[in-house]
Amino acid sequence: MTDVEVYRARMERAAVAAAQEGLAGLLVAPGPDLVWLSGYRVPADTERLTALLLLPGRKPRLFVPELERPDAEHAAGAGAMDISGWTDGEDPYAAAAELLEPQGRYGVSDNAWALHLLAFQRACPGTAYEALTEALPMLRAVKDAFETDKLAAAGAAADATFERIAELPFAGRREREVAADLDRLLREHGHSQVDFTIVGSGPNGANPHHEAGDRVIQDGDMVVLDFGGLLDGYGSDTTRTVHVGEPTAEERKVHDLVREAQQAAFEAVRPGTACQDVDRVARQVIRRAGYGEYFIHRTGHGIGVTTHEPPYLVEGEHLPLVPGMAFSIEPGVYLPGRFGVRIEDIVVCTESGARRLNNTGRELRVVR
Amino acid sequence: MTDVEVYRARMERAAVAAAQEGLAGLLVAPGPDLVWLSGYRVPADTERLTALLLLPGRKPRLFVPELERPDAEHAAGAGAMDISGWTDGEDPYAAAAELLEPQGRYGVSDNAWALHLLAFQRACPGTAYEALTEALPMLRAVKDAFETDKLAAAGAAADATFERIAELPFAGRREREVAADLDRLLREHGHSQVDFTIVGSGPNGANPHHEAGDRVIQDGDMVVLDFGGLLDGYGSDTTRTVHVGEPTAEERKVHDLVREAQQAAFEAVRPGTACQDVDRVARQVIRRAGYGEYFIHRTGHGIGVTTHEPPYLVEGEHLPLVPGMAFSIEPGVYLPGRFGVRIEDIVVCTESGARRLNNTGRELRVVR
Repeated sequence: MTDVEVYRARMERAAVAAAQEGLAGLLVAPGPDLVWLSGYRVPADTERLTALLLLPGRKPRLFVPELERPDAEHAAGAGAMDISGWTDGEDPYAAAAELLEPQGRYGVSDNAWALHLLAFQRACPGTAYEALTEALPMLRAVKDAFETDKLAAAGAAADATFERIAELPFAGRREREVAADLDRLLREHGHSQVDFTIVGSGPNGANPHHEAGDRVIQDGDMVVLDFGGLLDGYGSDTTRTVHVGEPTAEERKVHDLVREAQQAAFEAVRPGTACQDVDRVARQVIRRAGYGEYFIHRTGHGIGVTTHEPPYLVEGEHLPLVPGMAFSIEPGVYLPGRFGVRIEDIVVCTESGARRLNNTGRELRVVR
Repeated sequence: MTDVEVYRARMERAAVAAAQEGLAGLLVAPGPDLVWLSGYRVPADTERLTALLLLPGRKPRLFVPELERPDAEHAAGAGAMDISGWTDGEDPYAAAAELLEPQGRYGVSDNAWALHLLAFQRACPGTAYEALTEALPMLRAVKDAFETDKLAAAGAAADATFERIAELPFAGRREREVAADLDRLLREHGHSQVDFTIVGSGPNGANPHHEAGDRVIQDGDMVVLDFGGLLDGYGSDTTRTVHVGEPTAEERKVHDLVREAQQAAFEAVRPGTACQDVDRVARQVIRRAGYGEYFIHRTGHGIGVTTHEPPYLVEGEHLPLVPGMAFSIEPGVYLPGRFGVRIEDIVVCTESGARRLNNTGRELRVVR
């Protein structure tokens, strides 16, 4: 398939899926949905409306500020859309609303701006809206072989980054310096964008979203390394926890526990299993060991053209796993004021279970 | 004032302004509103709800994912808020909705995610919402001396960048290379973030939002340079159009025209003038010269902790200018397939008229 055919097929598939859910159409905002459906990456998401309208049985129509039309016309999927430019001072919502059914229910990108959604609600008071990940959670969740290959390449680059960083000295350097190395290494291994380079040393590791700060890493520290970004448009995201010098018995015990939980969740992945059940499996291992209160986040999240998307492996998510779904498995234990441990791989659900896209060792690695 | 007092005062002022507009409160999303009001910069804006609830007469309350609580507690304005963490699997909207008036009208950040707004609308079906820039367009629009000083520093750094770039060779280099120089120079002059480095040479200059591409700049090209970012949390944004070698009579004429329009709009700025009237003044100069159809965007936009915010100088914007408002004045003429010219300064409205924060020469500069 040529590029434009890939996007034409995705837009058609999305419109059909919308109709099957009883939706009158989809309002797609700049960001991952628009990139995935049309190949169009807006220069910047602003107060000026850019929206792709997908209506079953009609040609997709992209509304863009007139001055961004040349960019839109260069999008890989441009040939499969009509492009309508609007000029400052015009009302783009009124023009788009003319295409909407007055009482229709529409799916709207999760990250569409409230400014734009409110304007549609006002321009078309009878219409109703639903967040796209709630209306069509599967839209981008199931990857084809083309996409899985890209995720595997991103994962391999992240693995190579880990192997390199683990050879570098930790003790005596600031978290920020190690994070800068992770950024550099991810780019050296082909990433076009680095989204996060978490280096949580000692007590900082107990904050799962600590980024990287001025703390000087000490001999005897646990260090959580969680990093990723985009390579060729697809995401990487892996976590390994290393130890500077010899770990204590307790540190080893907690690390073994998280590894066991990660492995148990990995083995629980198969088509038909509910997302929440994978979370429960990981949580049960940690709870039974008496650390349940220290596992304070969900077990995983989907990954694709973004590093956070459906499916979410979390209590309450009944969605069944389907072959082609790609997501993280990343249990952790966080002991406030002391240290944290997290182990994360991206996996893809296949007919026969999970396939790992990260393959560095999950044992506790001792670094300098 | 200590830092926390700055943020406490802003949050109180916002709640009072909301009450004066008949709003029951404000829902503030991650991004510029939240940074300006509370000093809290979220690690990343995601599907997990982070929201600041400002209700007149009550202490501000920030809802954050529990695992981001440590970041929130380090925000400069943290001491002036109550912080409520929520855990994956809980319903944060229900918890927040308990604080809302069942029939209340709320202002919501323009860039709040549709996912979150729809969840609030569902959790509290009687509530109504209005985009913050429509409900309270003045909230961040009027800058105090502290903020104006920061904008002036950012402007001076952008000016220094232009002086340096104009000394470098253009002919024979790709737009992308010049853009990389702009990025480097902005950072060398203190910018922590670069938001855009537009280099539009020859026909590319006729696309106002062309970024920078592989085109090799030629002798005889007009080149539009439009660049900016954040310095110490405040925005810069300036445009100069340069010419490689000697310009033709027509190129000079068009440049003079845009310069005249920019000057006329600058002189039209005074307290009480409607935003649209500044746009009209610039447009009239260009229209009278017969180039009206080639000025295809508004005359300007506000600037502060973002590089695009109210007030907008556009037809239909009746908001009167107020001392302290900071915005761009950037008319342009774009001749498709040939070249473009734009001249842009950031100005601040004062009691006695506009004050420029960009002060490089506006004559057509000849470069190598």
